[in-house]
Order: sequence, then C-alpha cells, then structure tokens
Amino acid sequence: MIRTLALALLFPLVTIGVATAQEAVKPPVRHTLMPVPRSVVFQTGRLAVQSGFTVAVTKTSDARLLAGLGRALRRLERRTGIEFPRGLAKDADAATFVVECDGPGSHVPSVDENESYTLTVDAKRAVLKAATTVGALRGFETLLQLVDGDRAGYFLPAVTVDDAPRFPWRGLLIDVARHWMPIEVIKRNLDGMAAVKLNVLHLHLTEDQGFRVESRKFPKLHQMGSDGNYFTQDQIREIVAYATERGIRVVPEFDMPGHVTSWLVGHPELASAPGPYEIGRTWGVFDGALDPTREEVYKFLDVFYGEMASLFPDAYMHIGGDENNGKQWNANAAITAFMARNKLADANALQAYFNQRLTRILKKYGKRMVGWDEILHPDLPKDAVVQSWRGQASLADSARNGYMGLLSNGYYIDLGYRTADHYLVDPLPPTVNLTAEEAKRVLGGEACMWAEWITPETIDSRIWPRMAAIAERFWSPGIVRDVNDMYRRLATVSIQLEDLGLRHESMAPVMLRRIAGSHWIVPLAVLASVVEPVTGYQRGRVRPATQFTPLTRLVDAARPDSMVALLLRFGVDELLGDAPRFRIQRQELANAFQQFRDIRPAIDRLIDEAPVLQEAAPLAADLSGLGALGIEALSYLTSGIAPTAEWRDVALARIDQAARPRADVELAIILPMRKLVVAAAELGQFAELGPRAWAARVDTLAAPPPPPKK
Amino acid sequence: MIRTLALALLFPLVTIGVATAQEAVKPPVRHTLMPVPRSVVFQTGRLAVQSGFTVAVTKTSDARLLAGLGRALRRLERRTGIEFPRGLAKDADAATFVVECDGPGSHVPSVDENESYTLTVDAKRAVLKAATTVGALRGFETLLQLVDGDRAGYFLPAVTVDDAPRFPWRGLLIDVARHWMPIEVIKRNLDGMAAVKLNVLHLHLTEDQGFRVESRKFPKLHQMGSDGNYFTQDQIREIVAYATERGIRVVPEFDMPGHVTSWLVGHPELASAPGPYEIGRTWGVFDGALDPTREEVYKFLDVFYGEMASLFPDAYMHIGGDENNGKQWNANAAITAFMARNKLADANALQAYFNQRLTRILKKYGKRMVGWDEILHPDLPKDAVVQSWRGQASLADSARNGYMGLLSNGYYIDLGYRTADHYLVDPLPPTVNLTAEEAKRVLGGEACMWAEWITPETIDSRIWPRMAAIAERFWSPGIVRDVNDMYRRLATVSIQLEDLGLRHESMAPVMLRRIAGSHWIVPLAVLASVVEPVTGYQRGRVRPATQFTPLTRLVDAARPDSMVALLLRFGVDELLGDAPRFRIQRQELANAFQQFRDIRPAIDRLIDEAPVLQEAAPLAADLSGLGALGIEALSYLTSGIAPTAEWRDVALARIDQAARPRADVELAIILPMRKLVVAAAELGQFAELGPRAWAARVDTLAAPPPPPKK
Repeated sequence: MIRTLALALLFPLVTIGVATAQEAVKPPVRHTLMPVPRSVVFQTGRLAVQSGFTVAVTKTSDARLLAGLGRALRRLERRTGIEFPRGLAKDADAATFVVECDGPGSHVPSVDENESYTLTVDAKRAVLKAATTVGALRGFETLLQLVDGDRAGYFLPAVTVDDAPRFPWRGLLIDVARHWMPIEVIKRNLDGMAAVKLNVLHLHLTEDQGFRVESRKFPKLHQMGSDGNYFTQDQIREIVAYATERGIRVVPEFDMPGHVTSWLVGHPELASAPGPYEIGRTWGVFDGALDPTREEVYKFLDVFYGEMASLFPDAYMHIGGDENNGKQWNANAAITAFMARNKLADANALQAYFNQRLTRILKKYGKRMVGWDEILHPDLPKDAVVQSWRGQASLADSARNGYMGLLSNGYYIDLGYRTADHYLVDPLPPTVNLTAEEAKRVLGGEACMWAEWITPETIDSRIWPRMAAIAERFWSPGIVRDVNDMYRRLATVSIQLEDLGLRHESMAPVMLRRIAGSHWIVPLAVLASVVEPVTGYQRGRVRPATQFTPLTRLVDAARPDSMVALLLRFGVDELLGDAPRFRIQRQELANAFQQFRDIRPAIDRLIDEAPVLQEAAPLAADLSGLGALGIEALSYLTSGIAPTAEWRDVALARIDQAARPRADVELAIILPMRKLVVAAAELGQFAELGPRAWAARVDTLAAPPPPPKK
Repeated sequence: MIRTLALALLFPLVTIGVATAQEAVKPPVRHTLMPVPRSVVFQTGRLAVQSGFTVAVTKTSDARLLAGLGRALRRLERRTGIEFPRGLAKDADAATFVVECDGPGSHVPSVDENESYTLTVDAKRAVLKAATTVGALRGFETLLQLVDGDRAGYFLPAVTVDDAPRFPWRGLLIDVARHWMPIEVIKRNLDGMAAVKLNVLHLHLTEDQGFRVESRKFPKLHQMGSDGNYFTQDQIREIVAYATERGIRVVPEFDMPGHVTSWLVGHPELASAPGPYEIGRTWGVFDGALDPTREEVYKFLDVFYGEMASLFPDAYMHIGGDENNGKQWNANAAITAFMARNKLADANALQAYFNQRLTRILKKYGKRMVGWDEILHPDLPKDAVVQSWRGQASLADSARNGYMGLLSNGYYIDLGYRTADHYLVDPLPPTVNLTAEEAKRVLGGEACMWAEWITPETIDSRIWPRMAAIAERFWSPGIVRDVNDMYRRLATVSIQLEDLGLRHESMAPVMLRRIAGSHWIVPLAVLASVVEPVTGYQRGRVRPATQFTPLTRLVDAARPDSMVALLLRFGVDELLGDAPRFRIQRQELANAFQQFRDIRPAIDRLIDEAPVLQEAAPLAADLSGLGALGIEALSYLTSGIAPTAEWRDVALARIDQAARPRADVELAIILPMRKLVVAAAELGQFAELGPRAWAARVDTLAAPPPPPKK
C-alpha cells in the first residue's frame, strides 16, 4: 500500500516509501478506475494505443456524441503525445475503437436517462456499446481511465466492462452566491464532474450575500443584489449547454423564503419587515424572509419562476426552504393575523403553505420542486424531492412517506473532512430498513460546496479530488468500500482531473509563492503539506471574516485530507507492523522527521519578509518539536530500549500541545506521532503480548484524548 | 547576486546558494520595480500598509479609474491577507493613499496618450498624480511593486517616483491563428501586460491555418476557415473593452495578400489560382494569395475592412504584407498581363499597388495602415507604420524615409532565446544615426508570440516572465541595461504576475504529472529544470508536426531561459572567482551535481510507465554524466591538483556530446560545465597568471566550439 502511495505525494518533498521496481510489462491486475464499474473483468492481452488509432461510430451518432468523442481523443493525445488520424474511419471492422450507440437519448438530460454502457477490449479493437449518447460519454471516461503505459508503449488492457450507475441522481452543489464563482470555474468543474460520471450540477444561485443570475423581468434583483457579479442569461445558457454536452443536468436553486437578503435590496416590498436592506457581508442565518401572506409576493414569484423556467430546461427546480428563522414572520402583526385566520399553527405551517403555493407556480411551468429537509410537511405534494442535510434517517423517513430524496448530510465538502469520512457515507446503507419500492425513492445524493471560505482560486482544491470518491459512492455498487484502495486510485484520478483545467493540485504552490514573495518555498510547502484547514464550523470563530476578507493565507493554500499526513499514517502503521525489528519505512520516516525538525529557522526567515506568515510561527515551532520527537521515538524503537514514563508523558503533552488549531489549521500528523510515542513506551510489553495484541494495545493507548469540554 | 537569485528557483529541487540572514527591517536600497521608472529616489521612512488603509480620489475620476483602483486594492489585499475598508475616503487629508488625476484621457486608448505619473510616499501617505486615467493605472502598478514586508509588517518605502515611458508603442503580438487561443488566454495576458506597463495588444487574427474572427458580412470566412475556433464579435468587443480598461490598445492584423489560405477555403474566388483550398495544417510559407488585379477583391476587402473597422476602435489596422512568395501571381496569365499593362515590374511592385489600394480603403474607415517590412516601397503613404522583423537598420532606413516604425526583430519570443538576449536589443540603440525628428518616428516595438509550437497551456510560459524584461526595454531609459539586476527583479515580478492568473510558473508541474502519470515527479522536474527548448527554427526539423500534433512532451513543459541553469552559471562563476580556495558555492554545486548524477535510474523508472518520456532517456544519461563530471572537477579544484590532459579531453568531449539537441531540447548547463573542466585543467596556471588573467584564460578556453558546418 505505502509503496504505491509513495508515488502520490502532493509536494514531492517529504518522501516516504520508494517505488518498487516495475516489471517491464505490467499485468493489469490493479486498475485505477474511479468510479469502479458494476462489473469489470480483465483478460490477457492488450490493444496498443499508437499513431494509427482510428475510430468508427456505428448505428446512430449525433453532434453531442461526436463532440464528446473528439474531446476524449484530444485528452488521449495530450496524455500520450501521439497524434491520431483526424476524422472517423469508414470501415468499422478496421477501426481500433468502435462506438456503437443506439440513439441520442433525451435532448435535455433527464433523471431517467439510461447511462449504462459496455466496453470490451481485445487485442484487435475496443468496442463501446451504449443505449444513449450519455451512456457512451460515460464509457469514454472509463476508456480513458483504462489507458496504461509500459516499455512497449501505451495500451488498453483486454477487459470487459459492464457498467451502469447505482443511483440516478449524482450531484455537486456549487454555491456561487456567498463568494462569486465566474463561468470558467463552473465549466472546468463540469468537466471534472463528467470525468467521474456525476450527472447533476446544483447551482445555489441566490443567498443573503448575493443574487447571481440576470433577471430581465426584475433587473433590480441582479443589479442591486450582486455587486455586479452574476451570470448573464447568455452565460446561463452557455453553462446549461456545456453541461448538456457532458450529460449533466443543471438544477438551479432559488433559496426562499429565508436566505433572501440580496433579493430585498432591490425589492424590499417582498420582505416580511420594512427595509431598507443591504447585501449580507457576514455569514450565518439572517432574519430577512419573503412575506408568504401577500398575493403580490406570489405574483412576483410567478413571473420570476416563469422567467427562470425558460432559462433552465431541467425538470426540477430547487426552492431551498432551509433555515428560515421565522423572526420576521412572528414580529409582523399582519402575518401573525394571517396565520391565525388560516389556522397555521406556527412558522413551519406557514412555510408549508408557502411551499404549496410555490408548487403550484412551479407546476404551471412544468417543474417539480426540490427543497431541503425543512420542506417536509404533511401537505407537501408527493412529487417533490427532499434534499436531506439532516441524514439518512430523515431521508429514509421521507422515502417511507412517499417522497423522493437525496442525501447531502455527510457530503458537506466545505467542512474540510477527510475523503474517507465522506466515502463511507451511503445514501442507502445496508442497515436502512426500507422496502424495495421505498428504497427506489432514494434517488442518490449531492455533495455541497458551500462558499463562505472559498474563492475561484481555492474552490477546486476543496472539491477535488475528494469529490471523485463521493462520485464513486453514488455510481458504484455499495460493496465497493475499501478505503485504502480508494486512496490509491484517487491519487491517479486527481492527476487526470488536472488535464481538464482544474487547479486543485497546482494552485497551492502559486499561493505559497505569493505568501512568501519568493520562489523559495520549500519549507513553506513542507509546512503546508502537513496541515489541514480546521474542520466543521471552526473557521471564523477565532478570526471572524466577511465576504471581503482575503482568502489567501496558509489555511487557504492548505488542503483537506493532507496526502503527506496520509502517507505518514500508513508509514507509521507499517513500521509498527514490523515490530520488533522496526525496519520497514524507518529510513523514510527518519527523513521526514528530520525535515520537520529543521523547518523552524527556514520558516522564520520567510516570516522576515512575509508578515502574512507570522501566524505560522507557532505551527512551525510545533512541527519542529514533533520532528525531534519522532527521531527520538525511532531511536528507542530501533535500539529496543524503552523510554522512561516521564519521557512518554512529556512527549504526549507536547503532541497534545501541537494538536491545538492555530491560524485556522491543524497539524495533521497527530495520531501517528502519538502511536510512535506510545509504541516506544510499550516496547517492554511486546515479548509478552505478541505482535497482534501489542499493536492493538498501542492503538488503544494512542487514541487521542476526548476533546476538552466547552 | 547568486544569494538573491537562489530565492528564485523555478523548481525548488536543485538548490544553489542560501538566503543570507535578512535584517529585521530592510533598508529599501534595492527595489524590484520592472520596468524601472525614469526617476526613482528612495528616502528614509515608510508608510505602513495595514487594515486601516484608506484611499481618496481627488480632482477627477471616471469608472475606468475606479475599476483599476479596485483591482489594485484587491491584489494588495490578496498579497497581504489584510482586508481594507470598502469605498473611498471622503477626507483626502486623512487617506493613506491619494489619487489625483487631471482627467480621463482619451476614451479609446491612443498612441499619443499621456501615460506619465508621479508617486510620492512618505510616512503619512502615498500620493499618485497623473494627467490621465491611463497614467494613474501605470502608477498603481508601480505602487504594487513597491510594497514590501518585514517583521514590522507590510509597508511602502518612502520614495519619489517621476515616470513616463520612453516609447509610446509597447506591444505584444499574440498569434491566435496557427494555434487557437481562447478569450481567457487573451484576458490573463492583458492583465500581465498592464502589470508591466505594455500598451498594445497586436492580435494576429488570420493565417493560412485559421481565420479567427466572426465576420457577419462574409460568414464563410470564420465558418469554413476556423474549425469553429474564432472570436465572436461579442468576444472581440469584450477583449477591446478589457484592454481599454487597462489602458491597452488592440491592433488587429489581417495578414494579406499572402498567409490567406484559411480565407480561401470559403472564398476561393479571392485567390490568384483556382481552388479548392483547405485550411493549412503544416507550417511555413503557403502559395495562396489574394488576386490584387480584380476589382471584386477590393470590393470584398472594402466591405470586410468596413466591418472590422467598426469592431476595432483603434486608429491603426495591420494588413500584414509579409512573406508573399508571388508564385500564384507569376503563374497566372491574367495577373502577369495586368502587371505588364500597369508597368508593375515584379511581385513587389504589384504588392505595392495592392497596398495603395488597401490604404485608400483603410483611410475611408478612418484607419492608418501598419504592415511588416515588405510593405516598404516608394509608393507607400507616409502615415503608414512599418513593423520591422528585419532589424534596426531597416527600421532606421524607414525612419529616414519618413515612415513611423516598430521593432520586432530581436523580440521573437517564440524562438526560445534567453531573456538577456531580448533585453539588450534596443529599438533605438545609441549607435543608430538618426536626427531627433527621425528618431521620434521609431514608435517603439512589439514582441511576437508566433504560435506554431504553443497551446493555451504553454503560451504563458513562452511569454512570461521574459516579456517583462522586454517591457522594460520599451518603457525605461535606454541606459537601464544591467542584465544581472534585470534577472534579480524578474524573479520577483514573475511571482506577482501569477496572481493575475498567468500559468507560466505553475503549468510545468501539471504537464510533468501528466507525462509521468504520477505525483512523483521530482527527477523529471530536475531534468525539465535544466533543459531548454531548442532555439531559433530548429523545432520541427527532426520531428515534423502539424497543427494537430499534441504539444505535451518534455520540450513543452520545459521553459526558455532555465532559471536553474542561470543559477548554475552564476554559481560556477562565483566558485571560480574564489580561486584558489574555491569555497564559495562549492557545497551547493556539489549538491546539484549529485542530484544530476543520480537522476538516471529515477528517470528510467518513470519511463517504465510513461512511453512519451522515452525520448528523454539519452538526456538523463548525459545529465548523469555531467553530474559525475562536475563532482570530479570540483574535487580537482578543491584538492589543488590539476587533472591530466587526457581527463580534460575526455571530459570536454563528453560535454560536447551532451550539448547536442535531443527530443527538441538542449541541456542548458553546457557552458558552466566547460568552465569547470577547463578551470581544473588550468589549475597550474593560476600562480603565474593571477586571478584576473587566469579567469579570462578559463573563459576563453571554455568558450564553446563553433557549430559544425551544415
């Protein structure tokens, strides 16, 4: 495991593990497909990918299929450096790659689209069969992921793939409202989504902090609510067309009745309390809410949704519905009187009434409603889709009640959790107790990229590569759950995603050079590679921020789920698994610890010229300390002489000290450091306990202390 | 020198030199301004850049000024991580930064625009004064380049800058025709241009290989001549507006009568020989030429230029005029009869006739003509501007003949030469013999980014950072010619340019990861950092290519003017300057040589999985050999014992061997390697000759042998 992962270092500076010598011609035993297909069977043999690579399209073909094929071939050319013949082969029998597509599928991608395909490769040719163009597009991505190379050249391994998605709704929400994300961000992420077979882009277009789409009917919405940062209607059409080309639906969200402050700047008359309103600049839940008791509001929404319905062709429209705190409603006498008159017990009931009215408006324009958990109410029409930020239980409940649903709880990728944490969350876990019919109502899931803490510069590194693992959860059979194998494949997929213009790998050095004001960023890159942004909702607690706060600090260059920390965790586990010799990974760990130990003066020198880095000084000091500790622990383990209890206590205290978040980041190597120290302290127990029990004891004792009470 | 440059490593892997300890508070003795202002005088004191940084605009202001100011402040926020107050200060006396602008200047940027400004910083405030908005924009860039940081925080040093450009026409030509460059490439390069005070974007829009602008009058031009890759008229307006916002003119070029194959695909009737025509896919001079003898052609061009004149507001329009080989003309009986009838002696005379007709058309639409050297002819109207690819003598000639001119010879940045080579080329060298009036006709220069060998992925690294040094040549006083100081400042400016979205620094690792199929690119990055693409017109000789050939090989990831090679040259010079002790840089060079020596097995392992890298095997072998040689030479120098003549001969032969271009790249460390070997061989002469004469002797003997006869 570690030997493969060693190839996958983000910053090639902390080097753990060395590549094993490769055989000249690789047997295709371990693929790097992500998502894993429903069925994939490798055979002996290979199909060379070389300059005469020709392609034929049989049965039907449409412009979308040909364009998708062209994009795939250009990617293959870029990767191999080989120029393929232009144009399609006339003789399918002689072609290297045959695409057999039954029909174009629906013009507007639909939740019912048939995305299945089969791909067979033998020594003579590759044949891709699909019922629809979208199925063929999915197959192209698998084909590209299968391409491999060795001394004999590039090739496709002989294989039979029979593939179809587990869930029909596999989405990514991008919040373009809290921080503005221009069209090029959306386009490159659509390319990334297509590469891992996602099929829904959920655009969170309006928020307290911004109204991000041009409305010709009510131009004050975007003119006064966006700081000039919004998608024109032409750009929306461009996004929809770009997504459609890739078999991706675009579901727009217009969050209401809460989260509407930016609407109210230009249209205070829609609010439940008198204005004036200003665009929200801070984060959290705002009071502003539409007034659900006045007919003018519904007239407005009717015109507005009519306009948006013609702009967004998808069958679904998302009305948000979350986090309306009800304060404006309860404080407004006319509204409370309306509630009393209509026997609406509370704000929830009033919101349910509002949603019924919205449903009728959406229906008029041929749209079905999607909304967050809060829309669930006995009066909610059964064709609504509930998107659950609350969790699988809530999702299962709504399925039992006859509603279709999507899981988002567990996929909040803005919170900085590790890939494995998201990967193991299942929209439909085996433990859930649903009938087959009910289970079918769980359409899939959506990861959510909320935008309090991201900019166009950092969004890619918050979405990718973790999103690829979530995409696998949505597409692949539920039994595909091997975390180590996921990380192995993810490292390769992450590189392939870069070819699409995504900057998740390449932006960190740019940001570090800007911080340092210099090309000489080695120590800073080492530091950045072992810290992770604080998780959950910790960011902003110590250092409050607004929409204008620059997001260009160390925490912004750092990435969730540090790959170096991952390697270190594996490296320590391998070392301890080699007890009592402790040879595997020893040298590599020693090298890493030495780099950590010596980082402090180098970071201090950078701080001399880069005040923005002053916040990193205590982190560098702690990392230096951990490096020194690691070297000490290694020498105890190597010598076979256990340290004193005092050394252990001091060491663990120092590690706990280093574990505190500072500068909105955390050192991500705390657990392996604790393991090393405990292992050294427990050396004396090895002979008695034996390898297994000893390792278990170390793991137990090394588990981090519970977090302090608040 | 080397200690500063050590901060500027491209790949932080070959580390030569260490940063000297910085004083806690830096005296602002060495600035990193580029281009160097006409006058810059530093004083004692500083103005803190901190969270209360407020800005006032006095006298006049327009939307363009405010937008430019906003962009500058956002860049400053990103760099410092500090959030500034939004909005302008009402009380100018209390503001940290005061902008005093006399007027907006011309709406369409003009070659006569007043771009001067003064900037004074003292402990209380910074004051920028300019006659026009464009002058203020230039001043913003200087302000940003002045910002510095130390332990006390970010600050502007106290300074007085009095600045104006030397030449009024400071341009960059981007060829979007041979390889298509979409609008985002143009925009980020416009931002880079503005940052170094360039003011003309010359868009080479049409070529044999592509017609890149939408024509509504003759839609077959872009529909049949572009493979679908062209700027819509909306995009042209967007580009012009974006450039105008930054004080940059957009001069379009419609190359004719030659270089028109892509026009002829849709309009073969314009040609001088019967069609049909296909878009050019290879490089070089094509035969296709407009027929200058038929009135229909002029009618077509009249309508065409009328359409383009309304799209491009600049006063100048470029008609190309280069490399018409005359073959079609001489082979066409009707054309030769026309020439005889009109006493046009040859193709040149016919082209002059064509240009006179074009001039009249352009004049009708209020445009002046620009063309390449070939348009020079006694009949050329005096308000034409001649762009010289032939050189300063040709340029001076045309100035004597009353023509305005631009120098491009010496600034062909597609040819891969080093920054210093371009930097020292002067449009108006002191040796040129022109009267003051004649000299004024030399308007400036344009660097040319021809696009045979670039894609949107690599164009930035071919333009930047070298273009910044050329921009300095066009803006700064002619006496600013210190190459070492240029390189020192260039390293800093290059990082600042990244903030504008340019990918010249960050794309190479992406390309290397794609080549390797892995994150583990350290050895490949080392190799790529010491090779340079072959210079001049060597590329494509060994491995012919078409417009479709993928440009994703090692040569494409490599960059002109390797920074590591530069550091190695300086490092060796410092070492030899320290004779006979040879201590300075010794350890750093030894480290680098060791990395070189050990590269071979690592590259071989990468090749096991990346066939596209097979071409690099001999380079890696040679670099290994050079590394071993370097270590041997160092040990001779250190021991003071001279090697045998045989060792020297074998070593030099091995270096010559390594100097041969392979895989379209060259190892860029040949000269310092020869110096080291010769220095070791000449150790015995040191006592007799003394330091200076010995160093001169080493330099002379180490000069590379003349290239072999062809």
